[in-house]
Amino acid sequence: MKRLFVATLLAAGISLIAGSAFAQAKPEDAIKYRQGVYRVIGWNFAPMAAMVKGDRPYDAAAFARNADLVAYMSKLPLEGFVPGSEAGETKAKPEIWLDMDDFKAKLEKMQGEAAKLAEIAKGGDFTAIKIQFGETGKACKSCHDKYRNK
Amino acid sequence: MKRLFVATLLAAGISLIAGSAFAQAKPEDAIKYRQGVYRVIGWNFAPMAAMVKGDRPYDAAAFARNADLVAYMSKLPLEGFVPGSEAGETKAKPEIWLDMDDFKAKLEKMQGEAAKLAEIAKGGDFTAIKIQFGETGKACKSCHDKYRNK
Repeated sequence: MKRLFVATLLAAGISLIAGSAFAQAKPEDAIKYRQGVYRVIGWNFAPMAAMVKGDRPYDAAAFARNADLVAYMSKLPLEGFVPGSEAGETKAKPEIWLDMDDFKAKLEKMQGEAAKLAEIAKGGDFTAIKIQFGETGKACKSCHDKYRNK
Repeated sequence: MKRLFVATLLAAGISLIAGSAFAQAKPEDAIKYRQGVYRVIGWNFAPMAAMVKGDRPYDAAAFARNADLVAYMSKLPLEGFVPGSEAGETKAKPEIWLDMDDFKAKLEKMQGEAAKLAEIAKGGDFTAIKIQFGETGKACKSCHDKYRNK
Protein backbone atom coordinates (compact mmCIF):
# COMPACT_ATOMS: atom_id res chain seq x y z
CA MET A 1 0.00 0.00 0.00
CA LYS A 2 2.67 2.44 1.06
CA ARG A 3 4.86 1.60 -1.91
CA LEU A 4 1.92 2.06 -4.25
CA PHE A 5 1.24 5.54 -2.96
CA VAL A 6 4.83 6.59 -3.23
CA ALA A 7 5.00 5.26 -6.78
CA THR A 8 1.79 7.06 -7.69
CA LEU A 9 3.00 10.30 -6.24
CA LEU A 10 6.39 10.12 -7.84
CA ALA A 11 4.83 9.23 -11.16
CA ALA A 12 2.49 12.17 -10.80
CA GLY A 13 5.53 14.36 -10.45
CA ILE A 14 4.61 15.35 -6.96
CA SER A 15 7.73 15.67 -4.94
CA LEU A 16 7.44 14.43 -1.43
CA ILE A 17 10.03 16.88 -0.28
CA ALA A 18 9.27 19.88 -2.43
CA GLY A 19 6.30 21.99 -1.57
CA SER A 20 5.53 20.76 1.89
CA ALA A 21 3.65 22.79 4.43
CA PHE A 22 5.98 21.57 7.15
CA ALA A 23 8.08 23.65 9.42
CA GLN A 24 10.98 21.76 7.86
CA ALA A 25 10.04 22.90 4.36
CA LYS A 26 13.01 23.71 2.19
CA PRO A 27 13.45 27.49 1.95
CA GLU A 28 13.31 27.47 -1.86
CA ASP A 29 10.02 25.60 -1.80
CA ALA A 30 8.58 27.95 0.77
CA ILE A 31 9.63 30.89 -1.42
CA LYS A 32 7.99 29.41 -4.48
CA TYR A 33 4.89 28.61 -2.49
CA ARG A 34 4.38 32.13 -1.16
CA GLN A 35 5.21 33.63 -4.57
CA GLY A 36 2.55 31.34 -6.01
CA VAL A 37 0.04 32.62 -3.50
CA TYR A 38 0.84 36.24 -4.34
CA ARG A 39 0.67 35.44 -8.03
CA VAL A 40 -2.87 34.16 -7.63
CA ILE A 41 -3.74 37.24 -5.59
CA GLY A 42 -2.33 39.52 -8.29
CA TRP A 43 -4.16 37.66 -11.02
CA ASN A 44 -7.44 38.36 -9.25
CA PHE A 45 -6.55 41.86 -8.14
CA ALA A 46 -5.84 43.13 -11.64
CA PRO A 47 -9.35 42.79 -13.11
CA MET A 48 -10.83 44.49 -10.06
CA ALA A 49 -8.35 47.32 -10.54
CA ALA A 50 -9.35 47.61 -14.18
CA MET A 51 -13.01 47.89 -13.21
CA VAL A 52 -12.31 50.43 -10.48
CA LYS A 53 -10.27 52.47 -12.93
CA GLY A 54 -13.02 52.29 -15.51
CA ASP A 55 -10.87 50.43 -18.01
CA ARG A 56 -13.45 47.72 -18.20
CA PRO A 57 -17.13 47.74 -17.32
CA TYR A 58 -18.08 46.83 -13.78
CA ASP A 59 -19.21 43.21 -13.68
CA ALA A 60 -20.68 42.55 -10.24
CA ALA A 61 -20.38 38.76 -10.35
CA ALA A 62 -16.84 38.78 -11.70
CA PHE A 63 -15.76 41.40 -9.17
CA ALA A 64 -17.30 39.45 -6.30
CA ARG A 65 -15.53 36.27 -7.42
CA ASN A 66 -12.17 38.05 -7.68
CA ALA A 67 -12.70 39.61 -4.25
CA ASP A 68 -13.61 36.24 -2.72
CA LEU A 69 -10.49 34.69 -4.19
CA VAL A 70 -8.25 37.45 -2.88
CA ALA A 71 -9.82 37.16 0.58
CA TYR A 72 -9.28 33.40 0.57
CA MET A 73 -5.73 33.57 -0.74
CA SER A 74 -4.80 36.37 1.69
CA LYS A 75 -4.83 33.81 4.49
CA LEU A 76 -2.17 31.65 2.87
CA PRO A 77 1.14 33.50 2.49
CA LEU A 78 2.26 33.42 6.12
CA GLU A 79 3.14 29.72 6.26
CA GLY A 80 5.58 30.32 3.41
CA PHE A 81 7.70 32.70 5.45
CA VAL A 82 9.56 29.90 7.21
CA PRO A 83 12.89 30.47 8.96
CA GLY A 84 15.75 30.45 6.50
CA SER A 85 13.65 31.55 3.55
CA GLU A 86 14.91 35.12 3.70
CA ALA A 87 17.76 34.05 1.43
CA GLY A 88 17.33 32.93 -2.15
CA GLU A 89 15.25 34.05 -5.11
CA THR A 90 12.97 36.33 -3.16
CA LYS A 91 12.06 39.98 -2.88
CA ALA A 92 11.18 39.50 0.77
CA LYS A 93 13.35 41.64 3.02
CA PRO A 94 15.13 39.98 5.94
CA GLU A 95 13.42 42.55 8.17
CA ILE A 96 10.34 40.31 8.05
CA TRP A 97 12.05 37.75 10.25
CA LEU A 98 13.44 40.42 12.53
CA ASP A 99 10.00 41.79 13.30
CA MET A 100 7.64 38.93 12.55
CA ASP A 101 4.94 40.37 14.81
CA ASP A 102 4.78 43.56 12.81
CA PHE A 103 4.81 41.61 9.55
CA LYS A 104 1.95 39.45 10.79
CA ALA A 105 0.01 42.52 11.88
CA LYS A 106 0.35 44.03 8.41
CA LEU A 107 -0.69 40.75 6.83
CA GLU A 108 -3.70 40.54 9.14
CA LYS A 109 -4.66 44.10 8.26
CA MET A 110 -4.63 43.08 4.59
CA GLN A 111 -6.66 39.96 5.35
CA GLY A 112 -9.25 42.07 7.15
CA GLU A 113 -9.53 44.59 4.35
CA ALA A 114 -9.75 41.84 1.74
CA ALA A 115 -12.48 40.07 3.72
CA LYS A 116 -14.37 43.35 3.95
CA LEU A 117 -13.97 43.90 0.22
CA ALA A 118 -15.37 40.44 -0.49
CA GLU A 119 -18.33 41.19 1.75
CA ILE A 120 -19.03 44.61 0.22
CA ALA A 121 -18.54 43.24 -3.30
CA LYS A 122 -21.49 40.91 -2.78
CA GLY A 123 -23.71 43.94 -2.18
CA GLY A 124 -22.93 45.43 -5.58
CA ASP A 125 -22.68 49.05 -4.40
CA PHE A 126 -19.88 50.11 -6.72
CA THR A 127 -19.12 53.35 -4.88
CA ALA A 128 -18.63 51.48 -1.62
CA ILE A 129 -16.69 48.81 -3.46
CA LYS A 130 -14.29 51.34 -4.94
CA ILE A 131 -13.59 52.83 -1.52
CA GLN A 132 -12.93 49.42 0.01
CA PHE A 133 -10.82 48.39 -2.94
CA GLY A 134 -8.66 51.42 -2.21
CA GLU A 135 -8.35 50.38 1.44
CA THR A 136 -7.30 46.90 0.40
CA GLY A 137 -4.71 48.25 -2.00
CA LYS A 138 -3.36 50.48 0.74
CA ALA A 139 -2.98 47.49 3.05
CA CYS A 140 -1.01 45.66 0.34
CA LYS A 141 1.16 48.70 -0.24
CA SER A 142 1.87 49.22 3.45
CA CYS A 143 3.48 45.79 3.67
CA HIS A 144 5.21 45.97 0.29
CA ASP A 145 6.75 49.33 1.13
CA LYS A 146 8.30 48.02 4.31
CA TYR A 147 9.05 44.40 3.56
CA ARG A 148 9.48 43.91 -0.17
CA ASN A 149 12.43 44.81 -2.32
CA LYS A 150 11.76 46.40 -5.68
CA MET B 1 -10.15 59.39 -7.81
CA LYS B 2 -9.02 57.34 -10.76
CA ARG B 3 -5.54 58.79 -10.62
CA LEU B 4 -5.32 58.05 -6.91
CA PHE B 5 -6.17 54.39 -7.44
CA VAL B 6 -3.66 54.00 -10.21
CA ALA B 7 -0.98 55.61 -8.08
CA THR B 8 -1.85 53.39 -5.14
CA LEU B 9 -1.75 50.28 -7.26
CA LEU B 10 1.49 51.16 -8.94
CA ALA B 11 3.04 52.04 -5.62
CA ALA B 12 1.87 48.73 -4.24
CA GLY B 13 3.75 47.07 -7.05
CA ILE B 14 0.60 45.66 -8.52
CA SER B 15 0.89 45.71 -12.24
CA LEU B 16 -2.28 46.58 -14.03
CA ILE B 17 -1.26 44.50 -16.97
CA ALA B 18 0.49 41.60 -15.32
CA GLY B 19 -1.58 38.99 -13.67
CA SER B 20 -4.97 39.78 -15.05
CA ALA B 21 -7.75 37.24 -15.27
CA PHE B 22 -8.74 38.62 -18.65
CA ALA B 23 -8.93 36.72 -21.87
CA GLN B 24 -6.31 39.19 -23.07
CA ALA B 25 -3.91 38.22 -20.29
CA LYS B 26 -0.30 38.10 -21.40
CA PRO B 27 0.80 34.49 -21.92
CA GLU B 28 3.72 34.81 -19.51
CA ASP B 29 1.43 36.09 -16.78
CA ALA B 30 -1.05 33.30 -17.39
CA ILE B 31 1.79 30.78 -17.15
CA LYS B 32 3.01 32.22 -13.88
CA TYR B 33 -0.53 32.31 -12.56
CA ARG B 34 -1.27 28.66 -13.24
CA GLN B 35 2.16 27.62 -11.97
CA GLY B 36 1.36 29.55 -8.81
CA VAL B 37 -1.89 27.64 -8.45
CA TYR B 38 -0.15 24.29 -8.87
CA ARG B 39 2.54 25.34 -6.45
CA VAL B 40 -0.08 25.98 -3.77
CA ILE B 41 -1.70 22.64 -4.58
CA GLY B 42 1.67 20.86 -4.25
CA TRP B 43 2.44 22.61 -0.99
CA ASN B 44 -0.78 21.22 0.48
CA PHE B 45 -0.54 17.84 -1.19
CA ALA B 46 2.84 17.01 0.25
CA PRO B 47 1.91 16.90 3.95
CA MET B 48 -1.10 14.71 3.14
CA ALA B 49 1.21 12.39 1.23
CA ALA B 50 3.56 12.24 4.20
CA MET B 51 0.69 11.27 6.49
CA VAL B 52 -0.62 8.67 4.07
CA LYS B 53 2.86 7.21 3.76
CA GLY B 54 3.26 7.15 7.51
CA ASP B 55 6.17 9.55 7.47
CA ARG B 56 4.37 11.79 9.86
CA PRO B 57 1.51 11.09 12.25
CA TYR B 58 -2.00 11.52 10.94
CA ASP B 59 -3.37 14.87 12.06
CA ALA B 60 -7.05 14.97 11.20
CA ALA B 61 -7.43 18.75 11.35
CA ALA B 62 -4.28 19.44 9.36
CA PHE B 63 -5.20 16.83 6.75
CA ALA B 64 -8.71 18.26 6.39
CA ARG B 65 -7.32 21.75 5.95
CA ASN B 66 -4.84 20.61 3.29
CA ALA B 67 -7.60 18.71 1.51
CA ASP B 68 -9.91 21.72 1.58
CA LEU B 69 -7.19 23.89 0.13
CA VAL B 70 -6.44 21.45 -2.66
CA ALA B 71 -10.15 21.19 -3.49
CA TYR B 72 -10.46 24.96 -3.60
CA MET B 73 -7.32 25.49 -5.63
CA SER B 74 -8.22 22.71 -8.06
CA LYS B 75 -10.88 24.99 -9.53
CA LEU B 76 -8.40 27.68 -10.46
CA PRO B 77 -5.85 26.46 -13.02
CA LEU B 78 -8.07 26.42 -16.10
CA GLU B 79 -8.29 30.19 -16.56
CA GLY B 80 -4.50 30.26 -16.81
CA PHE B 81 -4.48 28.10 -19.94
CA VAL B 82 -5.24 31.01 -22.24
CA PRO B 83 -4.59 30.87 -25.98
CA GLY B 84 -0.96 31.57 -26.75
CA SER B 85 0.33 30.38 -23.39
CA GLU B 86 1.57 27.08 -24.78
CA ALA B 87 4.85 28.81 -25.58
CA GLY B 88 7.23 30.13 -22.97
CA GLU B 89 8.55 28.94 -19.62
CA THR B 90 6.07 26.15 -19.19
CA LYS B 91 5.92 22.39 -18.94
CA ALA B 92 2.43 22.40 -20.41
CA LYS B 93 2.30 20.48 -23.68
CA PRO B 94 0.74 22.17 -26.73
CA GLU B 95 -1.58 19.16 -26.92
CA ILE B 96 -3.68 20.85 -24.23
CA TRP B 97 -4.85 23.48 -26.70
CA LEU B 98 -5.39 20.89 -29.43
CA ASP B 99 -7.79 18.92 -27.26
CA MET B 100 -9.08 21.37 -24.70
CA ASP B 101 -12.21 19.32 -24.07
CA ASP B 102 -10.18 16.32 -22.98
CA PHE B 103 -7.91 18.51 -20.87
CA LYS B 104 -10.95 20.06 -19.19
CA ALA B 105 -12.42 16.62 -18.56
CA LYS B 106 -9.21 15.50 -16.86
CA LEU B 107 -9.14 18.66 -14.80
CA GLU B 108 -12.77 18.16 -13.81
CA LYS B 109 -12.02 14.60 -12.80
CA MET B 110 -9.29 15.89 -10.53
CA GLN B 111 -11.60 18.56 -9.12
CA GLY B 112 -14.19 15.91 -8.34
CA GLU B 113 -11.70 13.61 -6.62
CA ALA B 114 -10.24 16.51 -4.65
CA ALA B 115 -13.70 17.62 -3.53
CA LYS B 116 -14.46 14.06 -2.44
CA LEU B 117 -11.17 13.90 -0.56
CA ALA B 118 -12.01 17.13 1.27
CA GLU B 119 -15.40 15.70 2.20
CA ILE B 120 -14.03 12.36 3.39
CA ALA B 121 -11.19 14.07 5.24
CA LYS B 122 -13.72 15.83 7.46
CA GLY B 123 -14.97 12.43 8.62
CA GLY B 124 -11.57 11.38 9.93
CA ASP B 125 -11.76 7.76 8.72
CA PHE B 126 -8.12 7.40 7.81
CA THR B 127 -8.57 4.18 5.83
CA ALA B 128 -11.18 5.82 3.61
CA ILE B 129 -9.04 8.92 3.41
CA LYS B 130 -6.03 6.97 2.19
CA ILE B 131 -8.07 5.33 -0.55
CA GLN B 132 -9.47 8.66 -1.71
CA PHE B 133 -6.06 10.28 -1.52
CA GLY B 134 -4.86 7.61 -3.92
CA GLU B 135 -7.73 8.36 -6.28
CA THR B 136 -6.89 12.04 -6.18
CA GLY B 137 -3.24 11.36 -6.89
CA LYS B 138 -4.23 9.17 -9.82
CA ALA B 139 -6.34 11.98 -11.26
CA CYS B 140 -3.34 14.32 -11.02
CA LYS B 141 -1.10 11.76 -12.66
CA SER B 142 -3.51 11.06 -15.49
CA CYS B 143 -3.33 14.68 -16.60
CA HIS B 144 0.39 15.08 -15.96
CA ASP B 145 1.19 11.97 -17.97
CA LYS B 146 -0.62 13.26 -21.00
CA TYR B 147 -0.20 16.99 -20.83
CA ARG B 148 2.92 17.86 -18.87
CA ASN B 149 6.50 17.67 -19.99
CA LYS B 150 9.03 16.28 -17.53
